[in-house]
Amino acid sequence: MPKVEKRGKERKKKAESELKNFGNEVVEHIKDAEPPRIKIPSRSTSNIVYDEANRYFVLGPRYGVRTAASMKQVKKFAQTMCVADFCKELIKDGKFATLREMYYTAEGWEAGPFGDQGESNALVEDLEAWFGLRFGLKREDLGLTPEEDGAAVYGQLVVDEDGVTIDATKAGRAGYTIPPTIDEVEFVKCKAKRVIAVETMGMYHRLVQERAWKGFDSLIVGLKGQAARATRRFLKRAHDELDLPVHLFCDGDPFGFHIAMVIISGSAKLAYINHELAVPDAQFIGVTASDIVDYKLPTDKLRELDVTRLKQLQKDPRYSGEFWQSEIKCMLELGKKAEQQAFSKYGLDHVVKEYLPAKLGLKQ
Amino acid sequence: MPKVEKRGKERKKKAESELKNFGNEVVEHIKDAEPPRIKIPSRSTSNIVYDEANRYFVLGPRYGVRTAASMKQVKKFAQTMCVADFCKELIKDGKFATLREMYYTAEGWEAGPFGDQGESNALVEDLEAWFGLRFGLKREDLGLTPEEDGAAVYGQLVVDEDGVTIDATKAGRAGYTIPPTIDEVEFVKCKAKRVIAVETMGMYHRLVQERAWKGFDSLIVGLKGQAARATRRFLKRAHDELDLPVHLFCDGDPFGFHIAMVIISGSAKLAYINHELAVPDAQFIGVTASDIVDYKLPTDKLRELDVTRLKQLQKDPRYSGEFWQSEIKCMLELGKKAEQQAFSKYGLDHVVKEYLPAKLGLKQ
Repeated sequence: MPKVEKRGKERKKKAESELKNFGNEVVEHIKDAEPPRIKIPSRSTSNIVYDEANRYFVLGPRYGVRTAASMKQVKKFAQTMCVADFCKELIKDGKFATLREMYYTAEGWEAGPFGDQGESNALVEDLEAWFGLRFGLKREDLGLTPEEDGAAVYGQLVVDEDGVTIDATKAGRAGYTIPPTIDEVEFVKCKAKRVIAVETMGMYHRLVQERAWKGFDSLIVGLKGQAARATRRFLKRAHDELDLPVHLFCDGDPFGFHIAMVIISGSAKLAYINHELAVPDAQFIGVTASDIVDYKLPTDKLRELDVTRLKQLQKDPRYSGEFWQSEIKCMLELGKKAEQQAFSKYGLDHVVKEYLPAKLGLKQ
Repeated sequence: MPKVEKRGKERKKKAESELKNFGNEVVEHIKDAEPPRIKIPSRSTSNIVYDEANRYFVLGPRYGVRTAASMKQVKKFAQTMCVADFCKELIKDGKFATLREMYYTAEGWEAGPFGDQGESNALVEDLEAWFGLRFGLKREDLGLTPEEDGAAVYGQLVVDEDGVTIDATKAGRAGYTIPPTIDEVEFVKCKAKRVIAVETMGMYHRLVQERAWKGFDSLIVGLKGQAARATRRFLKRAHDELDLPVHLFCDGDPFGFHIAMVIISGSAKLAYINHELAVPDAQFIGVTASDIVDYKLPTDKLRELDVTRLKQLQKDPRYSGEFWQSEIKCMLELGKKAEQQAFSKYGLDHVVKEYLPAKLGLKQ
């Protein structure tokens, strides 16, 4: 995997120059009187491989060629060039756009509008795979941001955004919100010693209210369910740049496991960019089947879908470790699941006084 | 409607003393050797009335009596008392809890756990109707907050949360997040002259990026789709306390109309608390059927569900005005809808340079 520039501005410069090279290559083909073409990494399932050493999915070696010489491909080829040009303009203007904005912008392109947003998204994924595998650049580095903000962060972290200093204990109870442009954020100061990321905003507010950020010297991150791209990038950066261990406190059900695992080992769909998003050392401290038994937690019965999902996880390479295999088996035998709020049975602060210290090995 | 205390702390005091009175009334019944009972406002559809003068739904005069004398009601009666007691403790401890936390806490109550969270939520709604109609108090004032945060705010507003000062131009690109405890937030300073609330976070980031908060002297509010309770309360307070006109920029489809109308005239379901949430003077500046024609916007066909929904809106008293009737009719005839991002067809900044100035009457 290529070495990636850390800083947002350097990334942007790198993206700009590589976008130019991308275009120049095509120009060279034309000068050489060859049909212009690009080699796009294949994103088909058969080319997605679990990388045991890195502990996340990566793309295999297969490529497809998109060429202007084929009548079937020429429109798509031209549109790919337009997308790259759109990105180059964004970077030049210091702007960002969402995939949806790009889709509508294409209404004015000579290469013609897209049939639907699925088509334009797919082209962006092509480009992201191209720039990701070669230079470690994501679509955000090309100026195309997700629509949604990332998680909420509360704790002793100071960041800089465009010269504005933000203290994540002074942004309000709801915390500092990770923007879609997280790679442009600079970490200025961090007194926290770990990250505790929680699945629900209810638990986030509980931990903020009980001052767990102080008690555990921790950044509290409120994931809002499945983590957004910006959140995953934040957790990756907090782990790599700030050297913080990342703990994931999710519900004790297959969806909670999945939320944690996408942070840990990335998704298959984004295999071409997992090296920028996955945090293989992140630790699951969410509710397990053993916790359900040990803490006598209020539970819900596993639904049929839960059972199906758990059986899928058993065969998923990301869950091949002993811990996951044993907990999944135990949950299937138990036939029950529990939410992270279930600890409220023992009082609102039980989770801070008992559960988390035990999970974090901080209990005296 | 009763006069409501404005400040968070005074509200809490009021809530605490009224919770005590609530309990004392029941104690009085027992002292008088009468079966303890409470009169709960009816929230059935037939008791929800559209109030033409106030321009939102309110509860009618019907009540139901819940009494400990009935075997059928005694458990629910006891649970209602437990909920009120739980709220009293929350206020005493200066804490907040979510509905889900309360549901799990009830596992330890003598009155017994709830069958499911629907049961415990319904009791909270009972209490909220009781305290809302009498004293204008919401469940947040009783310590029970929504799980989710509210909208993102960017612009020249300074607030105070627990002694922490937050400037909504210095909380990062993602803005200041409205917390579930919005009534405890004090408005310290506001230079903005209006509020522009937008449906999608894509458009929110567009307006922040194009510095529309400066150009339009505006607070930009990112609704994230259907507005959360905290967001609605924020908009109401911005309108009433800061004297700001509120403009709603939504998609040009029935869901966009609905998102705007819930902010304007409240929902039927929360009829008992609309006086704390509805902003009847808020103005829809979202995409209309006329805009689709005038701006030649990229569109999608109305689906069957859209048509059904539009026909429902035609008969809804909240949409009885000339503007809505004419636009809904026009959209049905056109058979098309358009998203707010569709203006990107003319460039990313078209919405700031052309559309919004025209809608706000700021065009030269």
